[in-house]
Amino acid sequence: MNVTEAIESRRSVHDYADEPLDDETIEELFDRVKYTPSGYNLQPWEFLVLRDEENKRRLRERAFDQAHVTDAAAAVVVLGNSDPAAHADRIFDDWLDKGYLPDEETRDELIDQVEGWRERTEEENRVWTTRSTALGVMTLMYAAWEMGIASGPMEGFDPDGVREEFDIGEGYEPVMLVTLGYPTEDADDLDGPRKLRRPVEEITHFETFDPTPETEPAAEAVEAEASADDD
Amino acid sequence: MNVTEAIESRRSVHDYADEPLDDETIEELFDRVKYTPSGYNLQPWEFLVLRDEENKRRLRERAFDQAHVTDAAAAVVVLGNSDPAAHADRIFDDWLDKGYLPDEETRDELIDQVEGWRERTEEENRVWTTRSTALGVMTLMYAAWEMGIASGPMEGFDPDGVREEFDIGEGYEPVMLVTLGYPTEDADDLDGPRKLRRPVEEITHFETFDPTPETEPAAEAVEAEASADDD
Repeated sequence: MNVTEAIESRRSVHDYADEPLDDETIEELFDRVKYTPSGYNLQPWEFLVLRDEENKRRLRERAFDQAHVTDAAAAVVVLGNSDPAAHADRIFDDWLDKGYLPDEETRDELIDQVEGWRERTEEENRVWTTRSTALGVMTLMYAAWEMGIASGPMEGFDPDGVREEFDIGEGYEPVMLVTLGYPTEDADDLDGPRKLRRPVEEITHFETFDPTPETEPAAEAVEAEASADDD
Repeated sequence: MNVTEAIESRRSVHDYADEPLDDETIEELFDRVKYTPSGYNLQPWEFLVLRDEENKRRLRERAFDQAHVTDAAAAVVVLGNSDPAAHADRIFDDWLDKGYLPDEETRDELIDQVEGWRERTEEENRVWTTRSTALGVMTLMYAAWEMGIASGPMEGFDPDGVREEFDIGEGYEPVMLVTLGYPTEDADDLDGPRKLRRPVEEITHFETFDPTPETEPAAEAVEAEASADDD
């Protein structure tokens, strides 16, 4: 499946077939996720993969009882490490070894810089880890879709409840949940009309930032758009 | 280019050829970005695309003088709208029109809910907009790469300086910068050894979250890994 096809055909799915995801498939999937870029290559992402029925049920209780959490073959709690320096030594040793840094002094300066980020506000580090970890989630959803595995990204859950339920320490930000599984053959999510996307003219701005004010199209215009977009 | 190939061959690039990106190409690219999923389909992303030399120079000054900002054909300031309800009316009207909501009352409840998010802390809304907008950035980088366009994601810049320089209102979060352009034929970024990626065994956790402690491999082990990873 080419990239454009994956981007245009991927839908958020809630209707999952009763077919498991085996260890090999999960490993193949996350082996692609690892290539996601991150600031300074610091890779703050962690993925808690739940396939056990009881564990999915516990997660569903913390996710406003959304049925696809237990219907999916796997439900993934996506976590971002809020410590920017968690992997700094390894990462910058690697840069030095591969010739991306001129000397050990430069490596040590980079480690110091990233360790200094520990002193930023908790808010800054939440934003920081959310940014790189979300890049990883998008890789996950495209890699899955090419493998025939649908995904359902969710931000509607109780983060403190999820923390408590799965013993997740304060140093990790619950970024999102993602359900994963093979879709049913007649999944409504895949067959129904595509939801509105803000058009390219509205989301791109050239040379100066002049956000398009929220336009309120007349009811007739909305109807016409809905029909036109009915793919 | 299939998805796996795009994921595995994409690299962060700084060596750009002196070849412009025309309007049609930019439009084609962002026309794919728009399909990115977002919570409640609220699509908070905005992209300020700079191709003018003077504007790229102004951005570079706010981005620690990184040369690829001006070397690239385009430098993109990625912004996240911090107002969750900015597009709520349109989005939920669309859901109602397409049969995803049973009635107007449900639509109005959803609009109220999302408008209520305006009362969350500024921190929560920064995290919220960063999450969805970063998903869009990852789509941008894969869509670009399939079109032969390399990208250089950056979180190293002065967000307040960028705000000031480009008149970006307080309601928008500067999420990242991304440089875009055709790579040089001998781009070091594409030919050099791949940087270390945390292995799949380390980033995935099954049923319980037990983060692997930062392991400090002996110097010999790091060297061996660097050679093995020398692709």
